[in-house]
Amino acid sequence: MTAQRWILTVEYDGAPFAGWQRQEGAVPTVQGALEAAVRAFCGQTAAVHGAGRTDAGVHAAGQVAHVDLARPCAPEEVIGALNAHLRPAPVAVLAAAPAPPDFHARFTRNMKTYRYRILARPAPPALDAGRVWHLRGPLDVGAMRAAAGVLVGHHDFTSFRAAGCQGSGPVRTLDALEVAADGAEVVLTARARSFLHNQVRIIVGTLAKVGRGVWSAGDVARILAARDRTQAGPTAPPQGLTLMEVDYD
Amino acid sequence: MTAQRWILTVEYDGAPFAGWQRQEGAVPTVQGALEAAVRAFCGQTAAVHGAGRTDAGVHAAGQVAHVDLARPCAPEEVIGALNAHLRPAPVAVLAAAPAPPDFHARFTRNMKTYRYRILARPAPPALDAGRVWHLRGPLDVGAMRAAAGVLVGHHDFTSFRAAGCQGSGPVRTLDALEVAADGAEVVLTARARSFLHNQVRIIVGTLAKVGRGVWSAGDVARILAARDRTQAGPTAPPQGLTLMEVDYD
Repeated sequence: MTAQRWILTVEYDGAPFAGWQRQEGAVPTVQGALEAAVRAFCGQTAAVHGAGRTDAGVHAAGQVAHVDLARPCAPEEVIGALNAHLRPAPVAVLAAAPAPPDFHARFTRNMKTYRYRILARPAPPALDAGRVWHLRGPLDVGAMRAAAGVLVGHHDFTSFRAAGCQGSGPVRTLDALEVAADGAEVVLTARARSFLHNQVRIIVGTLAKVGRGVWSAGDVARILAARDRTQAGPTAPPQGLTLMEVDYD
Repeated sequence: MTAQRWILTVEYDGAPFAGWQRQEGAVPTVQGALEAAVRAFCGQTAAVHGAGRTDAGVHAAGQVAHVDLARPCAPEEVIGALNAHLRPAPVAVLAAAPAPPDFHARFTRNMKTYRYRILARPAPPALDAGRVWHLRGPLDVGAMRAAAGVLVGHHDFTSFRAAGCQGSGPVRTLDALEVAADGAEVVLTARARSFLHNQVRIIVGTLAKVGRGVWSAGDVARILAARDRTQAGPTAPPQGLTLMEVDYD
């Protein structure tokens, strides 16, 4: 009997994890938690492959992963059993569906949507602590939106790439980068087929300086053209970032 | 010199608190946390009066309170100092404004808006744990909306009142009760000048049974007319409830 490939939609709170990717030793990771749940459910050791390897502290509302299960079962059984074995870790399998054997969560062509939430007000977050980046001053959302427009498209994003990034080259296509105001929140939404390491968080750290009036859209164009990480803003903290969805072609 | 009355807008995560209202001993309450912050800031013991005395575990995004401060200060100073002294408790003062001496957060005529979030899906909440009531099955939002319509208006709400409620009589006017679907969430919004103890949570517990198909709008009309708490549904858990805003005339 051949194993069935399953595609899983996964939600998690990134706070207690050292990121998505499995690590040596007892380091808690989302992939490790899912693989332990698969082991408890099916008695088999199977790799759970994620679409995006989110960093430590980054959340997901719609991460997608695949896994091959030898045991035949119904989708509701996969969801129920994995969630039961995941408890009390803040990881939930929202959906499970059979997938063709050539489907790969990471390598099958897809579009990822990330959201970054900034809370811009004097008071710290009480209800959204751990879900937003808190900045005390007001932000000029119009200026941030104009500067975001500079970054959309096919560019060499060396200036917006973590020093240790192991991606294949610095060129990526950023399909969308929206900036919206929602009360005291500024919400940034980024869409691309592939992101460089820390790309969204460095973009957010840079646009926050635009929002504060330190830089303009012209400065962001100059930073992009410089192809130099030291020219861009700081890497925004992980807790504001959530992988919202992964859409496959 | 006369003390200045201040009106405060307050956000809090209800989880670590035994509710709004100050209690004897070392019980953590939101009112107690605010009064301790006032003491640390001004060196004075002053009562902080809230618009609504939220129960243990209930959150607020826009609770309103008033307090008399002997020390003259600017609004930004009140906000900054109280938030500094509140740390690390999940309570934040969002706004502070001078108020006339006859303003009273609770007794000045006002309209309160509460929101209740139900997460209706098989998977437990990972990102919104502590913010929603999790129900596994799907809910019929149309049926819930029809039943909600039965409760809007001026009624004797004895069936939707906690046994220990100390409010003045069981008659209240429920100005609005909206039921909206938002993905896997069902969000109920209730507006009234005054609520009975647990009124929103008993209404939600009752409408959840309508959503599951156990009861109809006609059953809810019968329950309302019965004036008997034992006829209504269970009291929905506190973590789904948030006091969203208090509007003064």
